[in-house]
Amino acid sequence: MEFVTALVFIFIACACGIVWAIFNWMAVHKVEIHHKHEGLTELLQGAEQEKIETLLEIGEHIQDGAQAFLREEYTDCSVFLAIMAVLLIFISPWSSLAFVLGAATSMLCGYLGMAIATAANFRTAFSAITSLANAFQMAYRGGCVMGFLLVSISLSILTLIIIIYNAIIVKSEDNNFEDLVTMFDYVAAYGLGGSTFALFGRVGGGIYTKAADVGADLVGKVEKNLPEDSPKNPATIADNVGDNVGDIAGMGADLFGSFAESTCAALVVSSTQLRVAQGDSYVIQISQLMYPLMVSAFGIGICILVSAYAVYISKVNHINKIESTLKLQLLLSTVALSPIIIGIAYWCLPADFVMVAADGSIQLSELKPWHAFLCSLMGLWSGLLIGYFTEYMTSHSYTPVREVAKSCGTGAATNIIYGLALGYLSTIVPIVAIALTALLSMKMLSFYGVALAALGMLSNLTIGLAIDAYGPISDNAGGIAEMSELGENVRESTDALDAAGNTTAAIGKGFAIGSAALVSLSLYGGYLTRIQTYKVGDQFPYAEGAKIDDPIIFAMLLVGAMLPYAFSAFTMKSVGKAALQMVEEVRRQLHEHPGIYAGTEEPDFRACIAISTKASLKEMIPPGLLVIVTPTAVGLFLGPYAVAGLLPGALVSGVQMAISASNTGGAWDNAKKYIEAGFYRNEAGEVKKKGSDEHKAAVIGDTVGDPLKDTSGPSLNILIKLMAILSLVLAGAFCRTGWLYKPQ
Amino acid sequence: MEFVTALVFIFIACACGIVWAIFNWMAVHKVEIHHKHEGLTELLQGAEQEKIETLLEIGEHIQDGAQAFLREEYTDCSVFLAIMAVLLIFISPWSSLAFVLGAATSMLCGYLGMAIATAANFRTAFSAITSLANAFQMAYRGGCVMGFLLVSISLSILTLIIIIYNAIIVKSEDNNFEDLVTMFDYVAAYGLGGSTFALFGRVGGGIYTKAADVGADLVGKVEKNLPEDSPKNPATIADNVGDNVGDIAGMGADLFGSFAESTCAALVVSSTQLRVAQGDSYVIQISQLMYPLMVSAFGIGICILVSAYAVYISKVNHINKIESTLKLQLLLSTVALSPIIIGIAYWCLPADFVMVAADGSIQLSELKPWHAFLCSLMGLWSGLLIGYFTEYMTSHSYTPVREVAKSCGTGAATNIIYGLALGYLSTIVPIVAIALTALLSMKMLSFYGVALAALGMLSNLTIGLAIDAYGPISDNAGGIAEMSELGENVRESTDALDAAGNTTAAIGKGFAIGSAALVSLSLYGGYLTRIQTYKVGDQFPYAEGAKIDDPIIFAMLLVGAMLPYAFSAFTMKSVGKAALQMVEEVRRQLHEHPGIYAGTEEPDFRACIAISTKASLKEMIPPGLLVIVTPTAVGLFLGPYAVAGLLPGALVSGVQMAISASNTGGAWDNAKKYIEAGFYRNEAGEVKKKGSDEHKAAVIGDTVGDPLKDTSGPSLNILIKLMAILSLVLAGAFCRTGWLYKPQ
Repeated sequence: MEFVTALVFIFIACACGIVWAIFNWMAVHKVEIHHKHEGLTELLQGAEQEKIETLLEIGEHIQDGAQAFLREEYTDCSVFLAIMAVLLIFISPWSSLAFVLGAATSMLCGYLGMAIATAANFRTAFSAITSLANAFQMAYRGGCVMGFLLVSISLSILTLIIIIYNAIIVKSEDNNFEDLVTMFDYVAAYGLGGSTFALFGRVGGGIYTKAADVGADLVGKVEKNLPEDSPKNPATIADNVGDNVGDIAGMGADLFGSFAESTCAALVVSSTQLRVAQGDSYVIQISQLMYPLMVSAFGIGICILVSAYAVYISKVNHINKIESTLKLQLLLSTVALSPIIIGIAYWCLPADFVMVAADGSIQLSELKPWHAFLCSLMGLWSGLLIGYFTEYMTSHSYTPVREVAKSCGTGAATNIIYGLALGYLSTIVPIVAIALTALLSMKMLSFYGVALAALGMLSNLTIGLAIDAYGPISDNAGGIAEMSELGENVRESTDALDAAGNTTAAIGKGFAIGSAALVSLSLYGGYLTRIQTYKVGDQFPYAEGAKIDDPIIFAMLLVGAMLPYAFSAFTMKSVGKAALQMVEEVRRQLHEHPGIYAGTEEPDFRACIAISTKASLKEMIPPGLLVIVTPTAVGLFLGPYAVAGLLPGALVSGVQMAISASNTGGAWDNAKKYIEAGFYRNEAGEVKKKGSDEHKAAVIGDTVGDPLKDTSGPSLNILIKLMAILSLVLAGAFCRTGWLYKPQ
Repeated sequence: MEFVTALVFIFIACACGIVWAIFNWMAVHKVEIHHKHEGLTELLQGAEQEKIETLLEIGEHIQDGAQAFLREEYTDCSVFLAIMAVLLIFISPWSSLAFVLGAATSMLCGYLGMAIATAANFRTAFSAITSLANAFQMAYRGGCVMGFLLVSISLSILTLIIIIYNAIIVKSEDNNFEDLVTMFDYVAAYGLGGSTFALFGRVGGGIYTKAADVGADLVGKVEKNLPEDSPKNPATIADNVGDNVGDIAGMGADLFGSFAESTCAALVVSSTQLRVAQGDSYVIQISQLMYPLMVSAFGIGICILVSAYAVYISKVNHINKIESTLKLQLLLSTVALSPIIIGIAYWCLPADFVMVAADGSIQLSELKPWHAFLCSLMGLWSGLLIGYFTEYMTSHSYTPVREVAKSCGTGAATNIIYGLALGYLSTIVPIVAIALTALLSMKMLSFYGVALAALGMLSNLTIGLAIDAYGPISDNAGGIAEMSELGENVRESTDALDAAGNTTAAIGKGFAIGSAALVSLSLYGGYLTRIQTYKVGDQFPYAEGAKIDDPIIFAMLLVGAMLPYAFSAFTMKSVGKAALQMVEEVRRQLHEHPGIYAGTEEPDFRACIAISTKASLKEMIPPGLLVIVTPTAVGLFLGPYAVAGLLPGALVSGVQMAISASNTGGAWDNAKKYIEAGFYRNEAGEVKKKGSDEHKAAVIGDTVGDPLKDTSGPSLNILIKLMAILSLVLAGAFCRTGWLYKPQ
């Protein structure tokens, strides 16, 4: 296949993705909100113009709050990103440029995703007045806009960078590895940019959302006995804004980072290692490296068809159909992509190739395209397995969550014990899936295989993002319906949408952490190759690689495994502190303005939004520094071997914590929903719903789970990815310094 | 130094230790309980003969319950141990014999420790009637019996085994490495025996104690509003029995395992690697390997003096002095041992020695005794640092626990969030200390250094065990005082003793996990040496060692890091299930016999004891199998490299979990105690004590912490140690099998 052919396909796919996103965007915006909507007057159960106006007003508040946060966040981060960009100029101006573009792409996608989410949320609530199917459509289409825009825009910008850098940097057509390797090294900074911004997006957004949520719950539900999302609670709007900045913008930045990094890792590793025999020598051309990009491009195409099925064909006219429709999306896209990937491999990859080792010798020979597609397929299907298993562990349709709900019968303590145990237990299947994928893909294609597996897992990323973004949109819709007092029926619809959203959010987190583990491993492979090929005179001082029984490597493996704990401690305390500030503000308002509780006075939402914004931007500094400073300092002072221990330590420990934190939190949330929906019966057979002791115990679990599942857990993805890509970029510097410790 | 000289010193030290233990045993038993005790009539606040009789009766119940449990546990375990012993005969009858002796020693020490603890507990309660100082004496002397008996007996039996095996197996006097290596390989099974029994002691005991504790709390405190240790609660006696079987017998078995394994690891590694130049060749003699045993022997001597100081000189006549006296014991023993260790190193070790690598080449040369004592010293002082830091994180005298207590003001959820964050944060200092110790000791003396560091940390083990066993004795004393209604003053004294006991228990756990990490690392070193020297014809198929970028090693590193999560999930659910059975029994009794609640009828303690016994013995099977089956199956099917990844994965992840679980639990317990003691004030400045919402929130935290700190956390020590020593013993078998996976 020619380079140009590949580019044409990629751009066509991106264009289609963007068009489909715009199409859905328009479909969402087409819903004009008016109280004289067809059949509405009866359905509103006597509601009036006023309620619809409240709905619009709240939608606007959320939109304003979210934009205000992003503005401040982007301003603060820009300063930091600018400093990093300037420092990167010392490595190469090209790296610096790619870095800036990566960060900018991430910001842009986050902004667009949030714009559509905040437009879809109140429309979903409004649509729920007429029918469940309409409401589901609205939320899902909103999610699709996010998914398709993000993947299409990032793939096209990355491809553009490759075209331009290739034209400028790569000189000759034949035997041009050196140039190709250098070029893709520069391109890799695109991933670093995405990941660095994701740090702020994930951590800052995560703190924002949970400070608001926990703060609102603590005063509202526990002290004042207000229902969730009560319009009398001043922190409610901040809570809803938080869903958007955390779960939409933050999650988007995270998965964009995974996508950009795994593509960059695949390109870096393959340009260094993948070779094709030509006479007596081994060469490589850029067109032979396009397989990973093509997988993503075709992924967009397939996902358009699959999402069109959800939008036009499946009818979600009953609560039971919500979760199955969303799950079917994942299954369909996985099944449809499998044969396509096989075809792309044979089309794009050389019929026969080898992988060379760091010292130039042949490491793996007689490789065929099927080795590559097997890696991608394993990633793709592991993703599905992780997604389905996560659903099993966190949905209240199955035993695990019901057991947790049942444990609420003996109080909050047993609920917490069972929830923690569920989270710990839920690591087994995903870890075995990831380990098996890593084992076989490394065995077949070394770290290139791992990068392909990561990309395989992300090949239906658009669908993954769509069903994930669907969650917070539905959650918001529920909140808005409650605040505008749209009535029981509407709440029931939005609650059901929201419960499914909790599960899809957990699935999304499963994907995010699974792909993060594989991405981080392939970046680690790139790092090891870099330090092993580092040369001083005729010597390769770090040629030995990473042996566990090397003192510094073992010691740092241990320290690395500690980092996720320190990081989680920081983020959880950040949430706690920010939530307490929120509690004080809410208490102050309710105390100084008794009219708020009576319903005669409107609370000051803006003050709460300002607190969450400020607190989250301030509190994300310590965990952010931990991630950036630790590998840099370890590398500069203790040398490259120390980092070669630190990274896998953080990786193997962080993955477990992230999975267990996300699933524990998801399970607690849904155990609470299970009780609220009236499914829970105590030993005497009585139904226990809101207000019962069992429900109170469940609320405590849910509140504990909030920072676990939405702040510390998902932020760990960034920890393991960002440390790896930062070390890859700084590998040369570590080899030159390492002042305090020299290898034996 | 001659071999015989060393033996004489070792046996003298052991004899002194045993005499000192017996002396304290007699001092405890000398307290004759009689209501006409000097000045007692006034102090009992009008109490009568009846109360003292209740006290004696309860003491007897606890003694009977504990013995009944041990009888059943020992019977069940003996079957399993017998099977393992028979299987080990296939490796060597000598290994099998050492294994049986190790297990038997552990059982004996556990039994003796429990016997003294159950004799000291009610005497402590009784002594608290007359004075705090007497009560402290009683509890501490009880702890000393446990500490000195365990270390002295195990050291003397181990030395005896060495003498006998040396006489039988080692043939010539000169140049006898091969025989020495073989012999110490057999001796190593002593550690395996201790560790295997510890698995049952720790896990079974841990489940027992927390099933009873959680079960008692759930019904008693939460449902029926009974105070802790109320005589009306049928599960109270089981709870007190649990403290003995979990924290005395279980902890003793755990630390005996650490001690035996690190001694064996030091002997195995040094016999394989430590050599002294003799003309042109390098040789070694058994007398040159006695350094580790001598450190332990002198440790006993120093600890006798230090504990005599606590018994005869320091006066604990005020509540504030309890914790400082116990802490001083640790400091004194550490300071006094430091110069002694230096002396022993120069006396016992060759003036100049080398370490040889697996292939026979010189790995480290020009080694001096100071290398060895530096390793031991680092271990010793790291232990102190870990102990003091643990105290800082878990005692309510300092900010961290007070912050957790304060977070109870906003409910149970914030209490849990802050407690979890505290536990995560508390990993930083111990991990850095362990990593630094591992780094420097490996750098100086390879894995021999690590084993010496582990032994250094355990050189004041007698004191560590004494202050640790002091905890459950005081806890029991408090329970007994409550049940016999000895009055407010007595309760205050025992509560203060108990609060200090929570902290020393956490310190003990810190030591246990720190030493477990180092022991496990040195055993891992032994394992690597074994597989690297494994030979098929002229080939060394596993000579490469453990490279992290080897596919199977990375995959298994990931799986290994998952095991502590799976194990914790199993143990926590075991506690949950057993606790629910207890809850049902308590409910049944209170329901069927209303007289119990009214105080006119005695509850059926024995039924609760039987439930805890049965449940714990049944529930320890799944986690036990996980630990034994996983490394065995991985090794047999996926080969020795797979295990070389599995072990460090489990080690680096398990250590973090164990530390954070122990400290979180300790902090919650003491946050509750802080509130109960009336130190907590809310924002309005009101004191909130028992019965307040803050206290209820604290009780929930404490209940969640119970299985974390007393079951899953400390059991992880066994996981990482037992997997390592089992793999070491089976290394040869793994090299011969590995059916499914061959190295590249």
